[in-house]
Amino acid sequence: MKKNFELIYEGKAKKVFSHDHADKVIIEFKDDATAFNALKKSKFDGKGELNCQISSRIFELLGKNNIPTHFLGIKSEKTIIAQKIRIIPLEIVLRNTAYGSLCRQTTIKPGTPLEKPLIDIYLKNDELNDPLITKDRIELMKILESKDLELIIDLTLKVNKILKIFFENIQLKLVDFKLEFGYNAKNEILLADEISPDNCRLWDLKQKNDTIVSLDKDRFRNDLGGLIEAYGEINKRINDFMNSIK
Amino acid sequence: MKKNFELIYEGKAKKVFSHDHADKVIIEFKDDATAFNALKKSKFDGKGELNCQISSRIFELLGKNNIPTHFLGIKSEKTIIAQKIRIIPLEIVLRNTAYGSLCRQTTIKPGTPLEKPLIDIYLKNDELNDPLITKDRIELMKILESKDLELIIDLTLKVNKILKIFFENIQLKLVDFKLEFGYNAKNEILLADEISPDNCRLWDLKQKNDTIVSLDKDRFRNDLGGLIEAYGEINKRINDFMNSIK
Repeated sequence: MKKNFELIYEGKAKKVFSHDHADKVIIEFKDDATAFNALKKSKFDGKGELNCQISSRIFELLGKNNIPTHFLGIKSEKTIIAQKIRIIPLEIVLRNTAYGSLCRQTTIKPGTPLEKPLIDIYLKNDELNDPLITKDRIELMKILESKDLELIIDLTLKVNKILKIFFENIQLKLVDFKLEFGYNAKNEILLADEISPDNCRLWDLKQKNDTIVSLDKDRFRNDLGGLIEAYGEINKRINDFMNSIK
Repeated sequence: MKKNFELIYEGKAKKVFSHDHADKVIIEFKDDATAFNALKKSKFDGKGELNCQISSRIFELLGKNNIPTHFLGIKSEKTIIAQKIRIIPLEIVLRNTAYGSLCRQTTIKPGTPLEKPLIDIYLKNDELNDPLITKDRIELMKILESKDLELIIDLTLKVNKILKIFFENIQLKLVDFKLEFGYNAKNEILLADEISPDNCRLWDLKQKNDTIVSLDKDRFRNDLGGLIEAYGEINKRINDFMNSIK
């Protein structure tokens, strides 16, 4: 990269570089995989590229459906151009089906369909292990104004409506997903980060029986193997679908 | 006890016995002390009696201030008569000053005074280690109707107003406390359990400097020693105050 593309930030799965335009950044998707707050780490050749492609397609779809996002366009196989944002240090998780930490922290059984989507909010803080946070604690910590929190929750519910149908079209069940938001230079709230099998639980609906076949990061979390094959399958289904509706 | 007083339930700090009257129970305060979900255990001779006396005085005070409680009267040094209730499996914690788990799960520093009381709700479930729970999760689990949850939160805020002033009168700072509620035979919501230095953080205001002097279960949690002396001091201040206003 040119000398003026400086590394601004490196996260667990992405690097953020400066851009010629001060309000833009270049985001590179890494091959690294981490789980359980990076207690478990690995690297999968090609993951960065697959997530970059999948996430870009999904952000394009959301943009067309009037969700404000940071995404501006694909730059290369594993980099995108995005609006520069100040990230809001919250992870907004929406659950359609109970799984993962929800089932470890309540008596709800894994796989239980939820009557209505559940929003769980976590404080984005590696040192504290991204703890579950209540609205009262968010208000106490003055993380953001309550009207902005309501907007973010509303956007998350809208994203769910769009993505649930989209994934059903390609025979995938959207179990849950995590979103992050930020403020751009104009102080507008934008959907940021990525949407990929790294932060969505996607179960294969092509399964005839009731077996859960995860096509997401649970393949790494739970040592199921075949992570790249799963991400590749999702990328293929998305591409096939997008080509079919052109 | 007579043969008809059967042990109905034994918790970490109390035993509940049946009573001749089906809608009543006898509650015995134990000398056992547990912390960190019973990972740490001990026994302090006289704790049961002190907590029984302290809690009874506080429940009398709350009753006089129109808080509906399960308390009916003292039976002996360490037993009370109470209305029989179905406990609601939630622990309602109210915090006036940041301390303990709040500071481990957020970036708020211990000892920070809170602009307004913070309510944290925990699922009462030993197996799950009493996890923090959000209102959305409570609704999802159908633990109670939202109007009942609002009533409980409202009662907790009222209890705080009464107890904050009461403890200030006896030179104690009410840092935080945990309440439990239940339904009686008429399905009325009553304050239940106990209110004692086992589930209130009380700091000595007689200290001249800024040192925190805990007169509560933190003496056991944090190996400070002098638990019985601290509980005894609180009991004495309560008795002296009650006698002075007779």
